[in-house]
Formats: sequence, structure tokens, C-alpha cells
Amino acid sequence: VDLPAGIREATADDAADILRLVRELAIYERDPEAVTNTEELVRRWLFGDDAVASALVAELPATGSGSNKIVGIAVWYRSYSTWTGVPGIYLEDLFVEPEHRSRGFGKAFLVALARIALDRGYQRFEWVVLDWNAPAIGFYEALGARPMQEWTTYRVDGEQLAALASA
Amino acid sequence: VDLPAGIREATADDAADILRLVRELAIYERDPEAVTNTEELVRRWLFGDDAVASALVAELPATGSGSNKIVGIAVWYRSYSTWTGVPGIYLEDLFVEPEHRSRGFGKAFLVALARIALDRGYQRFEWVVLDWNAPAIGFYEALGARPMQEWTTYRVDGEQLAALASA
Repeated sequence: VDLPAGIREATADDAADILRLVRELAIYERDPEAVTNTEELVRRWLFGDDAVASALVAELPATGSGSNKIVGIAVWYRSYSTWTGVPGIYLEDLFVEPEHRSRGFGKAFLVALARIALDRGYQRFEWVVLDWNAPAIGFYEALGARPMQEWTTYRVDGEQLAALASA
Repeated sequence: VDLPAGIREATADDAADILRLVRELAIYERDPEAVTNTEELVRRWLFGDDAVASALVAELPATGSGSNKIVGIAVWYRSYSTWTGVPGIYLEDLFVEPEHRSRGFGKAFLVALARIALDRGYQRFEWVVLDWNAPAIGFYEALGARPMQEWTTYRVDGEQLAALASA
């Protein structure tokens, strides 16, 4: 599948950069303590035999003798709909370093994932947005995304998950 | 992993029953036309080499010379969090035939999935609920689930997905 310029599929060699950008995103969202992910976990769950997620990276060409610089990531996994009967794409995280925005990488990631979806016959492309993030919402709606406003996600984790398991 | 009584992991032999219950759920939600899933797609995406989802079934013992009767399904897939670094469980559909409710199958499915999550080290168990479904919300909150109210899901599909891919 033909991806937009500057975007490529990540490989295991990108694991350290992916973790670095996950941490930068958490700092940006003022929640750095929340990240318990490690480079080993990234290697296992994005690139291992039983991988659950995939990533795209945004790359700037090397300057001088340096190597290409990874300045953005889009981490996604396959969802599934019992209605359509086929997988969809769920975009878990999208991050472009603040100093490398306005180059179009955000839109390029979304276009890349839409192309991957079409190429494979996947029928839905979804992600979540914080309700107060008006600039993001405007950007997404301009690209044809629509809010599934009547649905609320429920989550069980930590002690509640253990309690439920032993019910 | 030890599942509650009456609940077991589905096999490819359950594909026809799974599709039957998906269709019953769509009729129950007054949206039967929305289901384009087929038995072949169920076999491919739940039980094939590149399966994306899994299912549990609720089964009533055979009476007389008949076979066991499948009266409920829970279809789920693995999510992934860049924060935790490990998979989670996303419950895509839960359905128990109306005439077989109040036997506790709904709760048994949730307990079963919490056990599968703990057994594998998965850290989150999530699903979505329609905002107006007060009985379901009360049931879920009593089991320790909490609403992620500040997040809204955005979706692109159909013509918008094709348009985004060609942007």
C-alpha cells in the first residue's frame, strides 16, 4: 500500500523511538507517571509473534552524517464488528512532536491508515477524542469523521478487574 | 482458565450459532439490515489463521436426545494501550436470548472475560454502552465498571473512508 511521503510502517528497530514518543505524549498530556510501558513490552506487543498492535512513524530525512529522525507515531490495532463481520482500524495514539507540527504529518497518518484499511477490506476507522479538544474535533470532522455521541465507554481495571474475576 | 458454569470458549463449529445470535441481537436493536456478516466471515475472522476476534458462548445442557443449545454470545478482541504497554480486552457484543435471561449468563460472561484478562496479564477490560440504557449502566457500575465520560469515539467509514484514503 502506498503511504504518504514521510510516513512508513515501523519495525522492531523503532521500538526505542516509539517508547520515547509515547513518553513525550504523556508529558504533553501532563500524565507522565501513567506510562508503565517499556522498550521490551513495545518489542513484544508491536513486533513479537503474538503482536496485538502496529505502528506508523513519521520520519525527517537525515541532515549531514546523522540518521533519519522519527518525529511522530501512530499506534493502532485491529478492531472487529459483528455487524460488518470484518476488522476495522482503531487508532490508539497519534503524536507528532510539537516542534515538527504544521508539516501535515497528522493528516498524513490518518490518510495512511485509511489506505491500509481500504487495501485490506477493513470497513471502519475509529479513535477517541477528549471532549474539550475543540481543535482536534474540528480537524477530524473536516476529514469526514463523525462522533458516536450516544455511546459511552465503560472500563474495569486494577482492583475492580481482580474483584470481577473472583466473583 | 476456569470459566463460570455454562460458559465456554467458542470453536469454529459454533459459527452458525454465533451468526444466528448476532442477527437476533440486530433484530432486538431494530437494526437487522445493518448486519452484513456471514458464516464464512465468522469462520475467517474468529477462527481462521488471521483471526482478529474471539467468542464465548453460553450453553444450556441437551434435553433428551438433542444437542446442547447455545443461548448467548460474548464476542471480544484484544485492544492495546501505549500507556500500560500490554493488551486489554474489548467486549464488542454481548447477547443472551430474551427467554434465557435472569439465569446470570450476562454477569457470567463478564466474569469469564475478567478471568481471561487476569490469566494473560491484560490490564483493561472495556466496552461501550448506549447512554439511554439505564438498566445496563446500573448493572455495569455495580460490577465495578466506570464510564470514560470525557472521551468521544469518532468514526470514518464508507464513502468518507474512501475519500480520506485518496486525500
